[in-house]
Amino acid sequence: MHPPTPADIRAAAERIRPLAQRTPVLTCASFDTQAGTHAVFKCENFQKGGAFKIRGASNLVLSIPKEELGRGVITYSSGNHAQATAIAARHVGTMATIVMPEDAPRSKLEATRAQGARVVTYNRFQESREAIAARLLEETRATLVPPFDHPLTIAGQGTVALELLEQAQALDALITPVGGGGLLSGCAIMAKEINARIRVFGAEPARANDTYLSFQAGQRVSIPLPDTIADGLRSQQPGEITFSVVRRLAEAILLVSEEEIRAAVKFLLLRLKILVEPSGAVAAAAVLFGKLPAGIRSIGVVLSGGNLDFEQLANF
Amino acid sequence: MHPPTPADIRAAAERIRPLAQRTPVLTCASFDTQAGTHAVFKCENFQKGGAFKIRGASNLVLSIPKEELGRGVITYSSGNHAQATAIAARHVGTMATIVMPEDAPRSKLEATRAQGARVVTYNRFQESREAIAARLLEETRATLVPPFDHPLTIAGQGTVALELLEQAQALDALITPVGGGGLLSGCAIMAKEINARIRVFGAEPARANDTYLSFQAGQRVSIPLPDTIADGLRSQQPGEITFSVVRRLAEAILLVSEEEIRAAVKFLLLRLKILVEPSGAVAAAAVLFGKLPAGIRSIGVVLSGGNLDFEQLANF
Repeated sequence: MHPPTPADIRAAAERIRPLAQRTPVLTCASFDTQAGTHAVFKCENFQKGGAFKIRGASNLVLSIPKEELGRGVITYSSGNHAQATAIAARHVGTMATIVMPEDAPRSKLEATRAQGARVVTYNRFQESREAIAARLLEETRATLVPPFDHPLTIAGQGTVALELLEQAQALDALITPVGGGGLLSGCAIMAKEINARIRVFGAEPARANDTYLSFQAGQRVSIPLPDTIADGLRSQQPGEITFSVVRRLAEAILLVSEEEIRAAVKFLLLRLKILVEPSGAVAAAAVLFGKLPAGIRSIGVVLSGGNLDFEQLANF
Repeated sequence: MHPPTPADIRAAAERIRPLAQRTPVLTCASFDTQAGTHAVFKCENFQKGGAFKIRGASNLVLSIPKEELGRGVITYSSGNHAQATAIAARHVGTMATIVMPEDAPRSKLEATRAQGARVVTYNRFQESREAIAARLLEETRATLVPPFDHPLTIAGQGTVALELLEQAQALDALITPVGGGGLLSGCAIMAKEINARIRVFGAEPARANDTYLSFQAGQRVSIPLPDTIADGLRSQQPGEITFSVVRRLAEAILLVSEEEIRAAVKFLLLRLKILVEPSGAVAAAAVLFGKLPAGIRSIGVVLSGGNLDFEQLANF
């Protein structure tokens, strides 16, 4: 399958309008002072379902032919994509089955069930979510909603950049967190079409550096199950389609430590007064802690989600 | 002195434009479901200085005649008005002296000093802030910037309602937190002029119910030093000017418990993904916990500030 085109992303923006909100952008003078560059934050933590994932999930679910919809949809996800798929399935009136790790944040498990989805849990260290999903797919003949490596998913995520570059003109650069690469690849395709000279970066936890290593190697590299506070970015390998885009359009993948991620969450909370989950704050952490190359005067920073348990936050 | 007119509030909106931001409004479907009414949140936690106070303080400071500016400004405040006065003073290039309780939240003391102000601390239980301020005023002949009971302060705070009713049309009602009453009275004057049928409410901690008691009595009542988590609402008596407006234009003062305030802060944090301080969440708490009379289909809810220590939040 080929990556989506900018036209596919524009079509996705129309398609997902009933489900995805146009999230606001925020700026913060004290962030800019500390970071040494002007940041414009795209607040996907305010998105329906608490993360950008509704964009990709609803673009795919809303594209399923009517005759196949009745068999339901299936996905696997640590949380935000699960909730997004459940919301999209409920919207079109079909059943969602979600394969989730049994140690996913409680808030994410509960929110997914609250959307009417069937949740099948598994042990991350002993079982393969793909294998469980494959078995369920065979049983039900439902449609798989891949969390990142599908043209429709990527096109949905790319609408983040479409909106951001309408809301904030003349940015030198754009940066997003990287898990499987759906958000980064979709945003890169769209941003480069709007402004061919924009510089595109991904940000990854140093402890979950599969895309960084792949980027250095020039091919997809697989890593052991990562342990990071950024629970949404625990992918072990970038997607095939997503990586083909990231490799071509991103300038670099920037790494941040666990401590930098925590500090960024706190900064966004206490200064910008917004709650961003660790996975969602990784790009902001990279900018705040000086990982960018020199010469970038302004940058769009995607805050990709805000789903965090209070207990987890209180222990920061 | 007389309360400001709607024209005074519109003039304030023009005057404070260089200093106060037009803050966004947010909505939240799950809040509406739980509250049983549609709430539109005016996010003054995103305001410069982290609270609405910059509006009133800058309206007054920007009105000081040039020949008096050089002698500086003085105020007393538990925090947000202090920081706002410091910001406004720095903007016009004069010195601010701020009388603050020595047990004010550390973040507020530090933020005030960071704005270049001189901070004079006192013991809330043993000393009178008004007496200290009066002595300093005599020594310096500086201009007092009252935290609430002044027509220019009230006019500045009223710009919150002016913006909110432009951003959200056709609201049945409006509710704000009440400390000294500057925000509520300014908003009431403006809202009633825009829509004579709008219903106006104040919300107060049950433990700091000076305006509630005054409202019931039909005259200003004084209470002992209140103990509430809402540190910005620890006034012992409503202002003379503010109460004359509140008595005339507000329909009721609604009381909330400490537990309800904490729960509202958590709800706003985990669902709306925004940080609101306890004082700033009191109006949201009143709506969320069903204190409104029946028949209100939509309400503007002022979230008045977001300055909170991380340690305080973590202990919620």
